[in-house]
Amino acid sequence: MLHKIALEEAWNIPNAVSLGGFSPGTLAPAGVIGGDLGANLLDIHTTRLHQMDENGVSFMALSLVSGGPQSIADKDAAEKLARIANDALSEEVMKNPTRFAGLASLSMHDAAQASSELKRCWNELQGFIGVILNDFQSTGPDGNTMLYYDAPSYDIFWATAEELNCPVYIHPRSATPEITEKMWKGREHLAFSALGYANRVNMHLLGIITAGVLDRFPKLKLVVGHMGEHIPYDLYRIDHKLNRARFPDMRMRKDRLVSDYFGTQVFITTSGHFSTPALLCAIAEIGVEAVMFSIDYPFESIPNACVWFDDHVGQTLNARDLVRIGRGNALRVYPRLGERHGLVEMTPGECAVGGLKVDEGEVEFGLYNKDWSRRLVRQ
Amino acid sequence: MLHKIALEEAWNIPNAVSLGGFSPGTLAPAGVIGGDLGANLLDIHTTRLHQMDENGVSFMALSLVSGGPQSIADKDAAEKLARIANDALSEEVMKNPTRFAGLASLSMHDAAQASSELKRCWNELQGFIGVILNDFQSTGPDGNTMLYYDAPSYDIFWATAEELNCPVYIHPRSATPEITEKMWKGREHLAFSALGYANRVNMHLLGIITAGVLDRFPKLKLVVGHMGEHIPYDLYRIDHKLNRARFPDMRMRKDRLVSDYFGTQVFITTSGHFSTPALLCAIAEIGVEAVMFSIDYPFESIPNACVWFDDHVGQTLNARDLVRIGRGNALRVYPRLGERHGLVEMTPGECAVGGLKVDEGEVEFGLYNKDWSRRLVRQ
Amino acid sequence: MLHKIALEEAWNIPNAVSLGGFSPGTLAPAGVIGGDLGANLLDIHTTRLHQMDENGVSFMALSLVSGGPQSIADKDAAEKLARIANDALSEEVMKNPTRFAGLASLSMHDAAQASSELKRCWNELQGFIGVILNDFQSTGPDGNTMLYYDAPSYDIFWATAEELNCPVYIHPRSATPEITEKMWKGREHLAFSALGYANRVNMHLLGIITAGVLDRFPKLKLVVGHMGEHIPYDLYRIDHKLNRARFPDMRMRKDRLVSDYFGTQVFITTSGHFSTPALLCAIAEIGVEAVMFSIDYPFESIPNACVWFDDHVGQTLNARDLVRIGRGNALRVYPRLGERHGLVEMTPGECAVGGLKVDEGEVEFGLYNKDWSRRLVRQ
Amino acid sequence: MLHKIALEEAWNIPNAVSLGGFSPGTLAPAGVIGGDLGANLLDIHTTRLHQMDENGVSFMALSLVSGGPQSIADKDAAEKLARIANDALSEEVMKNPTRFAGLASLSMHDAAQASSELKRCWNELQGFIGVILNDFQSTGPDGNTMLYYDAPSYDIFWATAEELNCPVYIHPRSATPEITEKMWKGREHLAFSALGYANRVNMHLLGIITAGVLDRFPKLKLVVGHMGEHIPYDLYRIDHKLNRARFPDMRMRKDRLVSDYFGTQVFITTSGHFSTPALLCAIAEIGVEAVMFSIDYPFESIPNACVWFDDHVGQTLNARDLVRIGRGNALRVYPRLGERHGLVEMTPGECAVGGLKVDEGEVEFGLYNKDWSRRLVRQ
Repeated sequence: MLHKIALEEAWNIPNAVSLGGFSPGTLAPAGVIGGDLGANLLDIHTTRLHQMDENGVSFMALSLVSGGPQSIADKDAAEKLARIANDALSEEVMKNPTRFAGLASLSMHDAAQASSELKRCWNELQGFIGVILNDFQSTGPDGNTMLYYDAPSYDIFWATAEELNCPVYIHPRSATPEITEKMWKGREHLAFSALGYANRVNMHLLGIITAGVLDRFPKLKLVVGHMGEHIPYDLYRIDHKLNRARFPDMRMRKDRLVSDYFGTQVFITTSGHFSTPALLCAIAEIGVEAVMFSIDYPFESIPNACVWFDDHVGQTLNARDLVRIGRGNALRVYPRLGERHGLVEMTPGECAVGGLKVDEGEVEFGLYNKDWSRRLVRQ
Repeated sequence: MLHKIALEEAWNIPNAVSLGGFSPGTLAPAGVIGGDLGANLLDIHTTRLHQMDENGVSFMALSLVSGGPQSIADKDAAEKLARIANDALSEEVMKNPTRFAGLASLSMHDAAQASSELKRCWNELQGFIGVILNDFQSTGPDGNTMLYYDAPSYDIFWATAEELNCPVYIHPRSATPEITEKMWKGREHLAFSALGYANRVNMHLLGIITAGVLDRFPKLKLVVGHMGEHIPYDLYRIDHKLNRARFPDMRMRKDRLVSDYFGTQVFITTSGHFSTPALLCAIAEIGVEAVMFSIDYPFESIPNACVWFDDHVGQTLNARDLVRIGRGNALRVYPRLGERHGLVEMTPGECAVGGLKVDEGEVEFGLYNKDWSRRLVRQ
Repeated sequence: MLHKIALEEAWNIPNAVSLGGFSPGTLAPAGVIGGDLGANLLDIHTTRLHQMDENGVSFMALSLVSGGPQSIADKDAAEKLARIANDALSEEVMKNPTRFAGLASLSMHDAAQASSELKRCWNELQGFIGVILNDFQSTGPDGNTMLYYDAPSYDIFWATAEELNCPVYIHPRSATPEITEKMWKGREHLAFSALGYANRVNMHLLGIITAGVLDRFPKLKLVVGHMGEHIPYDLYRIDHKLNRARFPDMRMRKDRLVSDYFGTQVFITTSGHFSTPALLCAIAEIGVEAVMFSIDYPFESIPNACVWFDDHVGQTLNARDLVRIGRGNALRVYPRLGERHGLVEMTPGECAVGGLKVDEGEVEFGLYNKDWSRRLVRQ
Repeated sequence: MLHKIALEEAWNIPNAVSLGGFSPGTLAPAGVIGGDLGANLLDIHTTRLHQMDENGVSFMALSLVSGGPQSIADKDAAEKLARIANDALSEEVMKNPTRFAGLASLSMHDAAQASSELKRCWNELQGFIGVILNDFQSTGPDGNTMLYYDAPSYDIFWATAEELNCPVYIHPRSATPEITEKMWKGREHLAFSALGYANRVNMHLLGIITAGVLDRFPKLKLVVGHMGEHIPYDLYRIDHKLNRARFPDMRMRKDRLVSDYFGTQVFITTSGHFSTPALLCAIAEIGVEAVMFSIDYPFESIPNACVWFDDHVGQTLNARDLVRIGRGNALRVYPRLGERHGLVEMTPGECAVGGLKVDEGEVEFGLYNKDWSRRLVRQ
């Protein structure tokens, strides 16, 4: 599919480490994850753009790599990193605003300060279409205290996001040193993207929903990646077990289920989970309108995500729903994509989806490959 | 789900038999198909309406029971039956236009006459939102000649339907005496709704599509029932095998596939095929926008169709897509439902879909039944 | 997946035309369907075997290209073609019995003669694991009379097939000249594999089942291709509409549904319908044990079928079920594959399914492609 | 479906609280969860058996309600509770061994002691078919230390379970006081079955698998409930992200994926997650052989679970796979069900699945309800 929009795509600032930000070396040796992770994070207009062109990705919303300010326990340092990153990201995306936009980063130590920094990005800087929060905010002398945004004190921030019509992307992050020590020691391989990210952020997202934030701010929109961080698969059980008589103090609207918010106020992306059965399950549980394409570059390969979506999903899902997930839904969820970056709805034909999937002179539809012969590499 | 709209619902005129129309007795002895088929066909405002109320069906589009004029080989008799049925149906539905509308019947012996009768229904009579054609038109001295509407001579009719923005429902019918004798003798049980209906009407529908009718009349909309008459399941093979080099004379647009027309110009209904796996397959292949709820009353039981849709599909599909299939799509496909009958889009909440599926005082979501005990009747 | 078994694979004898058999030229000009259809039909040990090796197909069951004897109205000529084809096929497959076996062809003019020819193939010739029937048998002076095998007179044949434990593959064929003239004129592109084949053969299969053949011969196994010729998608409606009170004379067991026979006595193959949603629907409706991989070579491309099954289905279905469809089920349905051709059950690992799908030195699972860059050919 | 087997069904001993075991009052006021939870936990042979009869449940494997010994930080007290509970459970199930069996409880403070208690249950007591472990073992002065069984010191226990061919059910439990305080404060409604249970136990299960326990003990079988504790939905991402170059010390076989163990050494049950889309996703990802029916009584209603499985899943899944999930798979995973309790494989017919779903005198298949009229209670 041509003209895809990708929403959870990481980027980094050169001096990140000195500012307390992300250091690729801590994640994996160069080469382990699709080439040089550090270089790929810093690059926007060269390799990244080239691969977008090669793989039918029209547009990327970029965000500072996790944990960003959320992993900085010092309030001033966290706010400084957010400010510097936002200034830098605005400048970068405005070099090519028809191909890139940004999600603002915020320190969440202080909801009022977060609101004003978000307003600054939204009103004084250019190129921002939403905001990203990397799960809880670390705080405390040892960085082991976790601030969650379902606390009433954050309503001022949610009010700002709603007022600006700014979707809030809830992204995973690493556990605190203390929790890592207690829960993940000896199984660090599970602590990150394989499991721990989802296990932590799905609690935070459900905490925000069940605290009634989406009821108090009915125009607020939340986005989560990785095919919904386990939630779509478990929605029946989640709704079933949030027994109102057992939990009378739960602040979410009494006549609502968690599932009722998906597709209207909560949306998911495909970032980093290229599974067709999971996608079909999510579509059944939350609806095709609630799902948006994303890659999670450079932690994931752009061509790999696009081969999955274009070829595999494209052979499993009808053309209009494919284009809705690949492009259309993002335009509804992120209105500034149209208002500020000139992106418009496109038909399956315009996205080269459907129609006779052949070149000039070819005569058959339904070819999964063009090569008359194949090599089964694994033998 | 409340406020469902049903589109393929049969009705009959008292003197049908004398006019060459349908005689229930020929189908099955009374009692075999949910009560008295003949009486149920004649009734609109009593049992039918009562069951609609009991089962959350807000609205029914009624049509003369198949084969109607299509089964009458005599041109004048066919046109007379259509005219009489249309007058009677208009009168009946206008007794309760917030609950009922009609699909016009037409003789298809003569495309020009069909067009003028359709215009008469559309402009001079009240209560019509579309038209229904029962597969091919019987003609010839012995009634064994079959007229198909993919012939160029029918373009005048398609032009009229497009001009009026009148969706055309292509409904199955019985085979001619000759074909019945040659193909179905000894297996009459398969000749009708179990198989033969779909095998005949799917050829006619694909004939119309591949003849380029939808290309010449790009605003024309076609509807078929019974979960698409086998076609959604086979779309890959259909598209794959309509090899343009092998069939250079096929008039359909060279850059189009049959599947490209579903959801924009071709739509299906669930009438008489209450299968969740088939529905999920159809949704994947043609998209949720291409599917509309219908029952096929009185050949099907209203509560049976609604238990399936409300309880079974309602537990398998998200709330917004359920409402789209149960109501919303019909409003897009049949504009007169809104313009003339005052039907409006409704939210899942308004349709009592989603939310806490319990009564006052109850506390748990996720109950498939309310009875603490069950009887497994079949033991 | 390595070690796949394919069951509906066509072959032809050099002098087919002179014997009243299939002439490729009548189907399509050379080049239209993957290279030279005529040459590909005649070839077994060269191009075909080479492509099997390249695409992980261990074994093919070959059969004379449709319509074979079924399209020959003259009894003697039909029986002669069957006999000659069976002798030739036996000789060919025994040149390489670890890679090939045959499905016997039969004239069905006379059930007793069909039985004795089947016994001859089974007991006197080598290399046969089953039999193939191409829908109805043409007969009569003008070849317009159709013989269907649900007639009681064919019980002697079914008894033989059961006694030999010989699965019967029911394959489609073309319509008679008369039916073609009456039903398909002007829409010949639909008369064959795109639609007509399935519409005809699904009636025949359901005729055999509902006539009680599988009840009278409870060990008899039937196989149909093309993802079940529309039937799995419609099983609810088929079972629902075969109303015993309406059709009291239907001979099938009164306590049985058509769906009850799938997976125990009726099986389907994927030949020529490489649709993942259709496969998932079939698996839900009839069970993974009822589905077997096949290609329909040379009417379909071997690599195309294998890219679909290995890469697309392989990314959608778990490893054990993939191997069951690709190999294991065939061994249960066709016991002679083991007894005579030495084929054995294999694990996912032995078939190179599951496990870390990478080459030496690679580190990531989940790559849909190996190329860092892609060309979206259609731009 | 008749003759269902349920595997994750809770029971309690009268003096549980005094022994440091589970106190229903701490969970919810009486009446909140289907009647009197405390009484339902104590009952086996009265209400429970009556409802099993009414709902087609032939057999239940009972286990001491979670957390059991795992929640007792004192080694002696934990071992005492296990011993007392095992003695009591053995005595109870042997009162009706054709309907009930037990899963042994163990203290996991000391792997050697756990092994000997398991051997005692297996060899000296009657009625045990497996063992259940409620996630990690609490220990330490304040009960905040968590023992996980992926530590090498537990290999002696896994060796015993494999040697006895005793499947190990890994069941969720509550978090420690410290973790509850740090992570769940203010969102206690999420800490238990709605989310926290799965988030904790899925880490433990993946820890055991990725530590290579199933490689060192290749006959060992693990079972998890609640449709797999989120794992089936995320298997692509789990396998994809367990990058061997990034995590070279991961002890699991280098040529294996986590998904490779499902269906051979790891199995899931449907306990407490009655979602059809989730079930279909799990079947695609891990195969129908890997899924077994369970209820989670009395935390779930027996009729509710059975209405879902019999009516909803029974209308979505073919008969043989339904019976496999409802009964057959349990016989393969738990051999003692056959060896000691006399349970045998049954056909769909014997389980009253498939066939004409009507009573004497009824004529139609495909009725989702028997009532001609329905009440849409929610209006």
